[in-house]
Amino acid sequence: MSTPNPNILVYSPKQAKAYAQFIQDYGFTSVKYAESLEEAERYLPDTEIILGWKFPTKLLSQSISSSVRWFQSTGAGVDDLISDQSIPENIILTRIVDQFGAFISEYVFTYLLYIVKDVPRMRQSQIEHRWDSFISESLAGKTLGVAGIGSIGEEIVRKARAFNMNVYGLSFSEKNAQIVDCHFTSDKWREFVKELDYLVLTLPLTVDTYQVLNREMLLAMKQDSCLVNVGRGALIDETDLISVMQSGHLRAAVLDVFESEPLAKNHPFYSMPNVYVTSHLSGPSTVEGVSQFFIDNLNRYVNNQRLQGIVDRNRGY
Amino acid sequence: MSTPNPNILVYSPKQAKAYAQFIQDYGFTSVKYAESLEEAERYLPDTEIILGWKFPTKLLSQSISSSVRWFQSTGAGVDDLISDQSIPENIILTRIVDQFGAFISEYVFTYLLYIVKDVPRMRQSQIEHRWDSFISESLAGKTLGVAGIGSIGEEIVRKARAFNMNVYGLSFSEKNAQIVDCHFTSDKWREFVKELDYLVLTLPLTVDTYQVLNREMLLAMKQDSCLVNVGRGALIDETDLISVMQSGHLRAAVLDVFESEPLAKNHPFYSMPNVYVTSHLSGPSTVEGVSQFFIDNLNRYVNNQRLQGIVDRNRGY
Repeated sequence: MSTPNPNILVYSPKQAKAYAQFIQDYGFTSVKYAESLEEAERYLPDTEIILGWKFPTKLLSQSISSSVRWFQSTGAGVDDLISDQSIPENIILTRIVDQFGAFISEYVFTYLLYIVKDVPRMRQSQIEHRWDSFISESLAGKTLGVAGIGSIGEEIVRKARAFNMNVYGLSFSEKNAQIVDCHFTSDKWREFVKELDYLVLTLPLTVDTYQVLNREMLLAMKQDSCLVNVGRGALIDETDLISVMQSGHLRAAVLDVFESEPLAKNHPFYSMPNVYVTSHLSGPSTVEGVSQFFIDNLNRYVNNQRLQGIVDRNRGY
Repeated sequence: MSTPNPNILVYSPKQAKAYAQFIQDYGFTSVKYAESLEEAERYLPDTEIILGWKFPTKLLSQSISSSVRWFQSTGAGVDDLISDQSIPENIILTRIVDQFGAFISEYVFTYLLYIVKDVPRMRQSQIEHRWDSFISESLAGKTLGVAGIGSIGEEIVRKARAFNMNVYGLSFSEKNAQIVDCHFTSDKWREFVKELDYLVLTLPLTVDTYQVLNREMLLAMKQDSCLVNVGRGALIDETDLISVMQSGHLRAAVLDVFESEPLAKNHPFYSMPNVYVTSHLSGPSTVEGVSQFFIDNLNRYVNNQRLQGIVDRNRGY
């Protein structure tokens, strides 16, 4: 049985205060915020609910966290939380869902179009004051594969339809299987990737997806296909990707996520001509968006309704 | 009454032979091709039908053209033909319709996304090996205005829906008015432009649309709005656009067409920081696409059916 005004702790190294303000503005007045381990330790003993980003998870198994009932992550991916198996089972973990689809799908089509229309050639012609009328390719009729067709993948599929693309999908369950032209289960990766012009990864990182794009799978893709990763860096074996691309396989790789972030300053990806590196920005957790999701969930919590985005620890997301 | 195998002349300074081959492959065997005025003069006396690009229109009013019944342009815009008022009234003029929507709408969204997601910043960060996570804007919720909602504008509207944009439209007739959230007729330009985040011009060039985007209209647009021109260069007063943008008005202009093409090598547009110049390439006339349209129209012609894309010379397109 929840109280109508539960004790909430917001933890975020940079934006804790902004989140706390937003939540208080919605009438939940019992909010503390912490930006460091020490501050978290101070407030945890009375805390029932945590809204957290980069939270020091080891605190959750200590006695100071014994009153914590629910942990809401500010992100969609919770592999960092899941990997800490000491988090007590009685703490409900939730992640943000249905929030990043619009942003991430815009990012994906920004780069698909940038590459297919050959914007770099257009920009270079302008720099040289050169009239250079050429016929670029079209996305229409091309085949896009979306690995992971949850709320993010679903938005990518919807936009792909507007561009008259063929759309394939791979996922672990049959959910949403009907939205794609051809659905593959996770034991059919090779069959899935071999026909694609574009492969977009939106998968969570789990034991099943870790480095699923290894040398063998990358080589199973068409030589002139493009890979886009907006899921998690470790879905790809980065060493394999570098050597495969250096051998001339794949037309381009658009990478927003990396096994280790921030990407090291001397990482080869930065200088590879067909690799587009961005800084984990495709699906930004805005204070407003996350807070709104959290407030909705808070209202469910105080009314004893089922929360949105509950993480299945066995499944891994 | 048409013959089943009419005499056809293909005129194109560069691609006449390729067109002729395509047409012959479809069983219309009486095809000549010309790449110069002199060659055209040689073949015109027996010609009934012309498929032409950059055709020397003055020949059409001469006696050597007395057997010409139909002139099919290889493009969607026919302002160059219309402007020659000496073309005999008994020659039917047709233009390509329903062919460029996919290409041009891809071009439009390439640049809308390039600008809204701030790709230049992402590319620069990569060059500097710099991890630079920032929150870019989204097309979702923004208002796009499409001036000209024929077959090209219609495709732009369809894609804008997939990006959850609000869509306004301006056109001279009520045709397609129902596909936009708010429709304006051509006497309501100022009301149309003032709410827009993005204005895309797909209009034909006529006496009514010539330099319709002059200083006054450009200043009626929101200061941080973007202008995209995929119609005709002379829809815009280019001198006014330069001075208005130099004064800090408008966030960006994406220009694929110009009053004089090719754009002069020393034209200011090339070096203006927020002007994106491309070389009239957004809606390419491919030999295959144009030939296919022409073959369809040829079959209508020999069967005495109404042709597609008939130009109304009074209306101007």
